[in-house]
Amino acid sequence: MADWLTSLQTETPQQGFELALLLARKGVAYTQTSAEVRERLRPEYAENADSLTMASQVVAIHFQTVAAANGYWR
Amino acid sequence: MADWLTSLQTETPQQGFELALLLARKGVAYTQTSAEVRERLRPEYAENADSLTMASQVVAIHFQTVAAANGYWR
Amino acid sequence: MADWLTSLQTETPQQGFELALLLARKGVAYTQTSAEVRERLRPEYAENADSLTMASQVVAIHFQTVAAANGYWR
Amino acid sequence: MADWLTSLQTETPQQGFELALLLARKGVAYTQTSAEVRERLRPEYAENADSLTMASQVVAIHFQTVAAANGYWR
Amino acid sequence: MADWLTSLQTETPQQGFELALLLARKGVAYTQTSAEVRERLRPEYAENADSLTMASQVVAIHFQTVAAANGYWR
Amino acid sequence: MADWLTSLQTETPQQGFELALLLARKGVAYTQTSAEVRERLRPEYAENADSLTMASQVVAIHFQTVAAANGYWR
Repeated sequence: MADWLTSLQTETPQQGFELALLLARKGVAYTQTSAEVRERLRPEYAENADSLTMASQVVAIHFQTVAAANGYWR
Repeated sequence: MADWLTSLQTETPQQGFELALLLARKGVAYTQTSAEVRERLRPEYAENADSLTMASQVVAIHFQTVAAANGYWR
Repeated sequence: MADWLTSLQTETPQQGFELALLLARKGVAYTQTSAEVRERLRPEYAENADSLTMASQVVAIHFQTVAAANGYWR
Repeated sequence: MADWLTSLQTETPQQGFELALLLARKGVAYTQTSAEVRERLRPEYAENADSLTMASQVVAIHFQTVAAANGYWR
Repeated sequence: MADWLTSLQTETPQQGFELALLLARKGVAYTQTSAEVRERLRPEYAENADSLTMASQVVAIHFQTVAAANGYWR
Repeated sequence: MADWLTSLQTETPQQGFELALLLARKGVAYTQTSAEVRERLRPEYAENADSLTMASQVVAIHFQTVAAANGYWR
C-alpha cells in the first residue's frame, strides 16, 4: 500500500480526531481491500445505530493513541 | 467540518465528561453525516439497553483520554 | 445537568469502583435522559448475562481512569 | 455494600489476576444485586463461547489496572 | 488453582504474545472450570469469524499489559 | 510456532500499523490454527460491515501498543 501514514503529529486536536478516523478506516481497508465492496457495505452500517456506535468506538481507541502522541496538545 | 475541537482541556471533570460525550457523538457524525438520519436512528438505540451500554462505553474510552489530558483534574 | 462530578479523587479503591459505576450510568443517562425509560429497560438487561457483562466492561474502563487518577491508592 | 476492596496491591501476578476476576464479578453484582438471579444466569453464559470471551475481556481490562497498580510485579 | 502465573516478564515479544494468549484462556477457564465443556465449545467459536475476532481482541488487551510490563522489549 | 515477532520497533508509523495488523491476525491464527479454515471464513467477515469494524478495533488496540513501544515515532 502507498504511503499514507508518516506521522501521528497533528496541529490541533480536531486534526488528531480526523487522523483517528482515517486509522479506523484503514483498519477496515487492509482487511477488505476492495473499495467497491466497502462502498457497497456503507449503507448497511451507516443507517444502523449499533454499527455506528461500534465504528465510533474504534475512532475513540485510535484517538487515545493520537492524543498521547501529541502530548494531548497541551 | 467547521472547528468543533480546539482543546481537550476542561475546567472540571464534569465538563470533561461532557466533552467525552461530544467526541463519541462526533465519531458517529463523521460516519453518518446526515443529522436527519441520526435523528431517525435515535429512538432505536435510546430505548435499547445494550445500545445504551455500547454508547456509554465509547464515552468511557474518550473520558480516559480527556481525563489524562487534564492530569485527572488533580 | 446539575453538578454531579467535581472530582475523581476517592478515599478508597472501593469508593473509586463505585464512582466508576456512577460514570457508567451517567454515560447512559446523558443519552437516555428519561429516568422512567431507563427504569423500564432495567429488567431487560439485569436478567441477561451478556448485557450484564457489557455493563461490567464499561465499569472496568472507567475504573482504569479513576484508579489512575488516584495513583492506584498506593 | 460491605467492604470488599481495600487495596489493589497483591503479592503475585496470579493474585492480581484473581483480583481482576473479582472486580469483573463485582461489576455485575452491583447491577444485578440478586445472587439468586446471577446464579440462574450462570449456565446461560458459562456454556456459550462468546459469552465466555466477553467475560474474559472484562477480566483483561481489570488486569491492566491491577498490573499497573502493582508496577507489573517487577 | 495451582500456580500458573509467577511473572509477566518474558524474554521476547513473541513469548509475551503467547503469555497474553494464556491470560485470555485463563480468563475463560476461571469462569468455565470444566475443561470438558471448554473443549466442547471450541469448534463453535473456532469456525466463527466474529468469535475469533473477539478472542483476538482479548489477546490484544492482555498483550498491552504484558508489553508494558516488559518495557516493550526495547 | 516459528519465530514471527522479534521486536515491536518499526521505522515508520505505517509499518507500525501493519505490525498491528499482523498481531491481530496472529491472535486469530493461534486459536484457529488451520489456514484452510481461516481462508474459508474470510468471505464471511470481509463482506460484513460489523465484522470489519470489529477487526479494525483489534488492530486499533494493537496499534496503541506498537505506537507506545516506538515512542509514537516522535
